[in-house]
Amino acid sequence: MDHAMDHDRLLHDLMEFLRIPSVSTLPAHNADCRVAAQWVADELRRLGCREVELLADEHHPVVWGVGPAVPGAPTLLIYGHYDVQPPDPLNEWVTPPFEPTIRDGRLYARGSADDKGQVFCLLRAIAAAGRPPVNFRFLIEGEEEFGSKVLFDLLEREPERTKADAALVADTAYVAPGWPAVYTGLRGMCYAEITVRTAKSDLHSGEYGGAAPNAHEELCRLLGRLKTADGKIHIPGLYEAVRRPGKAELAAWKRLPFKEADFLKRRVQGKALTGLKKYSVLERLWALPTFEIHGIMGGFTGVGAKTVIPAAATAKVSLRLVPDQKLKTVERQLAAAVKKLAPKHVTVSVRFLHGADPAQIKLDHPSFKLLDQAFKQVTGRGTVPARAGGSIPVVPALASAGAPVILTGIGLPDDRLHAPNEKLELKQLWDGIEVFRTFYELLGAQRDM
Amino acid sequence: MDHAMDHDRLLHDLMEFLRIPSVSTLPAHNADCRVAAQWVADELRRLGCREVELLADEHHPVVWGVGPAVPGAPTLLIYGHYDVQPPDPLNEWVTPPFEPTIRDGRLYARGSADDKGQVFCLLRAIAAAGRPPVNFRFLIEGEEEFGSKVLFDLLEREPERTKADAALVADTAYVAPGWPAVYTGLRGMCYAEITVRTAKSDLHSGEYGGAAPNAHEELCRLLGRLKTADGKIHIPGLYEAVRRPGKAELAAWKRLPFKEADFLKRRVQGKALTGLKKYSVLERLWALPTFEIHGIMGGFTGVGAKTVIPAAATAKVSLRLVPDQKLKTVERQLAAAVKKLAPKHVTVSVRFLHGADPAQIKLDHPSFKLLDQAFKQVTGRGTVPARAGGSIPVVPALASAGAPVILTGIGLPDDRLHAPNEKLELKQLWDGIEVFRTFYELLGAQRDM
Repeated sequence: MDHAMDHDRLLHDLMEFLRIPSVSTLPAHNADCRVAAQWVADELRRLGCREVELLADEHHPVVWGVGPAVPGAPTLLIYGHYDVQPPDPLNEWVTPPFEPTIRDGRLYARGSADDKGQVFCLLRAIAAAGRPPVNFRFLIEGEEEFGSKVLFDLLEREPERTKADAALVADTAYVAPGWPAVYTGLRGMCYAEITVRTAKSDLHSGEYGGAAPNAHEELCRLLGRLKTADGKIHIPGLYEAVRRPGKAELAAWKRLPFKEADFLKRRVQGKALTGLKKYSVLERLWALPTFEIHGIMGGFTGVGAKTVIPAAATAKVSLRLVPDQKLKTVERQLAAAVKKLAPKHVTVSVRFLHGADPAQIKLDHPSFKLLDQAFKQVTGRGTVPARAGGSIPVVPALASAGAPVILTGIGLPDDRLHAPNEKLELKQLWDGIEVFRTFYELLGAQRDM
Repeated sequence: MDHAMDHDRLLHDLMEFLRIPSVSTLPAHNADCRVAAQWVADELRRLGCREVELLADEHHPVVWGVGPAVPGAPTLLIYGHYDVQPPDPLNEWVTPPFEPTIRDGRLYARGSADDKGQVFCLLRAIAAAGRPPVNFRFLIEGEEEFGSKVLFDLLEREPERTKADAALVADTAYVAPGWPAVYTGLRGMCYAEITVRTAKSDLHSGEYGGAAPNAHEELCRLLGRLKTADGKIHIPGLYEAVRRPGKAELAAWKRLPFKEADFLKRRVQGKALTGLKKYSVLERLWALPTFEIHGIMGGFTGVGAKTVIPAAATAKVSLRLVPDQKLKTVERQLAAAVKKLAPKHVTVSVRFLHGADPAQIKLDHPSFKLLDQAFKQVTGRGTVPARAGGSIPVVPALASAGAPVILTGIGLPDDRLHAPNEKLELKQLWDGIEVFRTFYELLGAQRDM
């Protein structure tokens, strides 16, 4: 068996996958999502899967695959997603988001790190390992960036699909270059649209300005009340369920190669960090809920000048949730807070788009040691335990099925997920394939997990 | 000479004019603006103008016309505009904005009242009057909704075009049904875009949420500081130049048929009026500066969910100005206030799109009496002096040329200018043509103005 990798061939195939604009949240890309699902299905067939199906076909399908049976060998469920975030603002991309381009050893494309590049890595590592004695199961979905509802529903109907000795999810990053990580927590997510209405229709600012309420003005003020400049979120009850990390975990985070000044200068690239100053930046990013405004709709946003007093304004917002917050509770709390903080003369409504509970994972299963060993062998350093500030909606459901969920990733912290110029470093890609190849081989050598 | 009006023919012609989507602020409609200018030029030729020109042709042209010379007769300059406001939000129109439709005695279309319908009224009244002994001059521009810069520049180069015994502008409304008005003041306008930048590019709210600044959040807070819930604008120095109306003017406003409760219920159609409560609603609308948000750009506003922390956010805003505020001063004050109220960790900029000084007009010229008489003859009630909250950018320039500017209009207060379902009541249109016909005849009878 030849372990040497044909890098040109691998890049060619990955670029083909990255060229498909499978943006799950934009209906205009529904057909592209299907093409991406088909690409994954073909890939699974190439890996020798005896059973490949597109499930829940009325949505962006979930690609399900079952690898060759190896009696007595451990079963590994591989989860990933083929959908990507919208690429806007397009004008900030150096090269177009769906025309993968290599510059300075980095592969630039939407989805290069989140998550197509990592899915590719997990799959090609199987090919690189020859036919490792592992019973592979694959669940590669297409609505991760959109709440994973299709997968939730599927797993509720058919929970047996998650039966495995371990589940492997590579949708995150090293904590720093050279520092691979395994994740003990993910934040959850509550995505909503808050709409403020002040009049029946838009009004002329000349005729009405000075006496008529302005929906954007009311919305801005409402948003300013929901979160103040000190970073505090004023949603009654929101912080009650928040469990602070233990002393040991906080101490471990202090040993991570993370410098707040570097984070500001190299990654945020702004003038100052914000948020609840009495907590460390890592605690703010990993262990505290957030409230972010993503965009504001309504009124006039075209070129030029229109002097309208908007009658309606909608903010797209989201909260990230942490243990032990529950999505359902937070939804109720947000709706109540909006109602309470809006003045009586405006009509408010909150529409929930999608969400996920936070996840917490214990590293007590032997498979975590095997991953640690694989990283150590390939990169020279084993995994450090960390948390992720992002959300992978289905992880809590995977975890509740009983199998340990191994959350790791081959990205780097500056990969610019969800932003212009998303990239994956080629070194990370090659190392990643080697790491997972080694992990599969180590796992295949186990006989009683 | 037959004064009877052929209503079908008039409606047919007006609808033709209204069907041209001459939205001056949207570059996509540049060709339509030219078509509308041509329509006006053809109309002036039909009225017997011996000189018709499209001036400043590199912009939306100004239509210039000179009527038949009547030696010894007074000269009247007629000003109006053929451009219209953008029609969005389109989904709130009962019938499409550029498909004029009559329902219940009202003509619905963008521009029906502001200002095509009124321009049409001024012009067809000349035809209705036969050939009144008046030396007509016409300045019908196409950038009124966009700041009138082209006309300003033209009048600065060629001030002789405004030489007249009086200028007539019909771009406003009755103060109430049955109450024609003549206007003693117009508010000015300062339209700007305020941009806040917090990072180099958009960031993932999972990776950065809790510690990275959010441009929309900062912009909302900044806007909340610029104008507070009590209606006060916090731009240092802004109110200093504001001259309160005299006691006589305030007393006259109290006698107008204006009820605040009606204004809220029938026109704003909201739950409460806002603004500086210690001033009457008319004073807030006519004699105090405003600050309005028109729309907010940046971040993600597409369908679905994108969990981005926006790096930049821009608000389209405008202030209405009142005597004795000056546009140039207010621009400086706004830029300084934005700089002062923004936190140090954000980068702010202000871009000025267009503006106009406020205007004040004395009703001491004999032509105002003639207009009063014309309205009295046709509608049974003469004009009441009022102010307008809106802006007609070129009026201060017309006024400074020396001729009295007669600001009146045949619209009604609920015509929904700049908003969906703009309309003009047919009774107002027919009365309007009669009123201006009568006015031209009365004016033509003058020999030493």
